[in-house]
Amino acid sequence: MIGGSLGMAIKKKNLARVIGLTRERSKCERAVALKAVDYASSNIKGIIQGADIIFICYPIHLIIPEIKKIIQFVKPGTIITDVGSTKEFIVSQAEKIMPKGVFFVGGHPMAGKEKTGIEEAEADLFNGRPYVLTRTKKTDGKALETLKVLVAKLGAKVSIMDPSEHDRVVAAISHMPVAIAASLIDSIDHAGKLKKQMMDLSSSGLRDTTRIASGDPFLGTDMFTTNKKAVLEAINNFKRSLNTVTALIRKGGTESIAQKLADVKKLRDSIFK
Amino acid sequence: MIGGSLGMAIKKKNLARVIGLTRERSKCERAVALKAVDYASSNIKGIIQGADIIFICYPIHLIIPEIKKIIQFVKPGTIITDVGSTKEFIVSQAEKIMPKGVFFVGGHPMAGKEKTGIEEAEADLFNGRPYVLTRTKKTDGKALETLKVLVAKLGAKVSIMDPSEHDRVVAAISHMPVAIAASLIDSIDHAGKLKKQMMDLSSSGLRDTTRIASGDPFLGTDMFTTNKKAVLEAINNFKRSLNTVTALIRKGGTESIAQKLADVKKLRDSIFK
Repeated sequence: MIGGSLGMAIKKKNLARVIGLTRERSKCERAVALKAVDYASSNIKGIIQGADIIFICYPIHLIIPEIKKIIQFVKPGTIITDVGSTKEFIVSQAEKIMPKGVFFVGGHPMAGKEKTGIEEAEADLFNGRPYVLTRTKKTDGKALETLKVLVAKLGAKVSIMDPSEHDRVVAAISHMPVAIAASLIDSIDHAGKLKKQMMDLSSSGLRDTTRIASGDPFLGTDMFTTNKKAVLEAINNFKRSLNTVTALIRKGGTESIAQKLADVKKLRDSIFK
Repeated sequence: MIGGSLGMAIKKKNLARVIGLTRERSKCERAVALKAVDYASSNIKGIIQGADIIFICYPIHLIIPEIKKIIQFVKPGTIITDVGSTKEFIVSQAEKIMPKGVFFVGGHPMAGKEKTGIEEAEADLFNGRPYVLTRTKKTDGKALETLKVLVAKLGAKVSIMDPSEHDRVVAAISHMPVAIAASLIDSIDHAGKLKKQMMDLSSSGLRDTTRIASGDPFLGTDMFTTNKKAVLEAINNFKRSLNTVTALIRKGGTESIAQKLADVKKLRDSIFK
């Protein structure tokens, strides 16, 4: 989905020739037909040798193994980037295995969709959406600048961030909420004889609050295992806020509850206009 | 919104003459123009005296005060019902003040919308949605049956429930999630120097998970104060599930995390098809 969307966006804006590399040959024709790539094949060596910029669009835990497979064929000057939602885990390992003269820059396009696969790809996916690129002591300034310009041309709002800072932000706004949504559904699963009635009566409130609990379980597992420290920190921060809210409910003061809900509404309305 | 939708639905299906009672005279013409009522006025006595079934469409904490105001004008045989999302609090008080021969049946149409006001009303709002009617030892069987038939004709799926059972179910699927969504936003509000980046990078996951934190603060306050016991119980159950999920993340076992997320996804997908 992300890889196809990147290809479509780059081709639509005529920014480069896009070559797809996939293990499954059946996908090559489909990618060309959907205008996600100019050409695609499963010939690693041939494709990697000719590449100037390589986007690794794999699930988090497969990104480093994939880089290890392709790295022997990369020509000097090539920029490698990824689209994983955890950055410290990936960037620290990728930087260690980069050959001299090959540049790694971590990337995270924050343009989510529940569904995966190239049929879900859209050329406008990145339009107006945040796209994080990482900068560390080892990051090559020119490579970062090249990617920054490219990604901005896709319509994305580029943020340059330190990998661990990125991970803490993403833990709070994306990874930890998956744990919360999962816990909401889990609490219904354990409601005993009221479970069926809860399922029957559930409405749009619960539907939206738990939407991300219907995401790919392996993607969630990747978030929780590769961004563990920041996710646990975000859960702790959430628990502190929940304890504050719970204390207000227990106390039962109408004004203080209304004030807290009004504060929260104001902040949320300023985030999502 | 709910009152207008009830009127539109009843009129559309030609089930009864609909008379609106409102304090604000300016709303009367608008309600007639929108086909929510056949006629509307602010003349309490005249309207209440002629009513066979009265729907009280007020915020939770105003329902009992409103019943107290109209009760002196109600003729014998009249059925009074409400649309509040907390039932024990309302039903127990309403039953105490019902004159002999006047019947109260608690109601809760589970057809939510963020927005309020008659401009948001829709004749099809209840179509396929759950509509809870309460039954207690004091409930008149014939009055309950009359309402059940009427509400079913509006397209709703009627559930007959004990008020306290209703409250526990609704706490888990509707009221408690408001506390969770509010706490998610509150945790971002207290993220210190990362707050701005969290706001800038937040995406559809956080948007949906916290949508109900943008609801009317007074409605949320009503839920938390009038259904306090059940909400606190639901928060405790949620915390237990969150502790389970957190322990899995802390342990870091890929298979056990994936299994939990897959279980949760399966249950959620069975609730929201």
